[in-house]
Amino acid sequence: MFDRRTVVAGVLTICLCPGALAQQRPADPLPSWNDSGPRRAIIDFVARVTAEGGANFVPVEQRIAVFDNDGTLWCERPNYFQAMFALDRVKALAPQHPEWKTTPPFETVLEKDFNALLGTGEKGIARIVAATHAGMTEDEFAEIVKDWMATARHPRFDRPYNSLVYQPMLELLAYLRANGFKTFIVSGGGVDFMRAWVEQAYGIPPEQVVGSSLAVKLQDRSDGKSVLVKDAKVEFVDDGPGKPVGINRFIGRRPIFAFGNSDGDREMLEWVMAAPGARFAGLVHHTDGVREYAYDRNSKVGKLDKALDQAIAKKWTVVDMRQDWKTVFPPEKAATVGIQR
Amino acid sequence: MFDRRTVVAGVLTICLCPGALAQQRPADPLPSWNDSGPRRAIIDFVARVTAEGGANFVPVEQRIAVFDNDGTLWCERPNYFQAMFALDRVKALAPQHPEWKTTPPFETVLEKDFNALLGTGEKGIARIVAATHAGMTEDEFAEIVKDWMATARHPRFDRPYNSLVYQPMLELLAYLRANGFKTFIVSGGGVDFMRAWVEQAYGIPPEQVVGSSLAVKLQDRSDGKSVLVKDAKVEFVDDGPGKPVGINRFIGRRPIFAFGNSDGDREMLEWVMAAPGARFAGLVHHTDGVREYAYDRNSKVGKLDKALDQAIAKKWTVVDMRQDWKTVFPPEKAATVGIQR
Repeated sequence: MFDRRTVVAGVLTICLCPGALAQQRPADPLPSWNDSGPRRAIIDFVARVTAEGGANFVPVEQRIAVFDNDGTLWCERPNYFQAMFALDRVKALAPQHPEWKTTPPFETVLEKDFNALLGTGEKGIARIVAATHAGMTEDEFAEIVKDWMATARHPRFDRPYNSLVYQPMLELLAYLRANGFKTFIVSGGGVDFMRAWVEQAYGIPPEQVVGSSLAVKLQDRSDGKSVLVKDAKVEFVDDGPGKPVGINRFIGRRPIFAFGNSDGDREMLEWVMAAPGARFAGLVHHTDGVREYAYDRNSKVGKLDKALDQAIAKKWTVVDMRQDWKTVFPPEKAATVGIQR
Repeated sequence: MFDRRTVVAGVLTICLCPGALAQQRPADPLPSWNDSGPRRAIIDFVARVTAEGGANFVPVEQRIAVFDNDGTLWCERPNYFQAMFALDRVKALAPQHPEWKTTPPFETVLEKDFNALLGTGEKGIARIVAATHAGMTEDEFAEIVKDWMATARHPRFDRPYNSLVYQPMLELLAYLRANGFKTFIVSGGGVDFMRAWVEQAYGIPPEQVVGSSLAVKLQDRSDGKSVLVKDAKVEFVDDGPGKPVGINRFIGRRPIFAFGNSDGDREMLEWVMAAPGARFAGLVHHTDGVREYAYDRNSKVGKLDKALDQAIAKKWTVVDMRQDWKTVFPPEKAATVGIQR
């Protein structure tokens, strides 16, 4: 059966090529995940939908995966990072607006810390958004966000905000893409705020980002060229019931895989699961006050209450950050994956 | 220099493999285009932006190409095909609505031919749209569109509407994709109307279609599952100045290549061209009354007037359908390219 040459060649291959054996057992695609329930559920799901001829096979073009951003792909504490950005902008713009010292809500924000923002109510927040996110072109806004990402640092971890992404979720995104999935962000955050940095951070291009938005208008400039200017009017809120609407509007088909972390993701997860065929719904549960933050049912930011009840009742995958993740954040310098589509 | 064996092997390769020589000269990527100005401009542009190290090189992730649909990728006469669909729906639904026989604008539409639609004015069109495009789920609407595509036939060409796509443009889409471009539709047509058939027709997936839309709401059903229901309220008109706004909203970056055919595409073409670097703007000029239709400055549907002036002044590429295209439509049976991304 085996002649002498074949055996010799085989032995030589094994001895001379240290990679030969390693190739037979492929590298772990999710090294930052402990070998517990969530990791097993993910790998099992991907194996089922990619097994050609299997009962749960899904053609490549239908392998759509959607991820919430704040608290699911990156940290959202002590406050949504976009709120931290807005307050830094109020401080940076204050010298040009001396009247702010005596104008609510700006005086509140300037005198106190960033938690004051939540106390200013919906009208207050709208005024902060108008002052920091509108009245400029989309290109100008993108530059402001990029500058902030390059210079601002998180108050507790003392590192750039866009380095506070979750290492296990970066691995999950790459693992899904390696298995033919197209990965999208579907977030309550501003779509143009995210598009300024997510391609470098997650390998997700701008056209695969769904988010909230202000109205944008085409305006003629004096040089005859037209520009897109951000208006203060809220156009779309991509949160709660807005998430299935946003997915339908931007993607145009129902994903088969969705991950979130808060009640704002409940409708998205329910809608993703409410169709036949193999489907996956996951929640990140913030249980790790040492390495990150611990919060759920009573939190103002990232409240996880009804969605957790649903997840338990319907046996969705719930990631216990403390138990299921070996690592939370990547090393600061390594925290950009670059462009991978 | 050449030993005997090499020469013999070379001769054998050439003699035994009929494909060997052909491979040295790659197949023409645009066989339905005459060797005239537009074809040369397209090939020259693609060569420049893909030449690594060249002055006009564009990285793959920025190779975004956008195409209008009606009159650019498929025929739009005698009326926009979506209007033909709406009128066929009015006729199909009429037995359930006996009151339509005496209700404008339905009576007009039912008694006369489809040209009556344009005569009913904006309010009339809105009522037709509400009756034919709203009050159902997105999934139900997609099925209705697919059924219509499978059964309705064009009044002049007597073949399915989705087979009346332009063969040269199918080749252009494939050529751009083969050169690393991501191809998008940016059309005044309804986004969900297009998504029901464009993937098969053009190889463009639903998430790469930007269009006009009615508002869509998430509604709970009695079985506890939620569905997306189409409302009669117009949410977004992706035409004229709406096109750069729609591109910004859905794609989030400025394309480098755009093709249109009417004044509704002017702002899109201008905005695509109004940035540094190599950029391409093209117009399909309908000059072929024999093989297709001839119309431009005075047409109600697909009016091409100001955009043509701009194209001439700014030396954009103008395709003279009669002169520049060898073929207009593919053979009826071959007119689906399938899924190619």
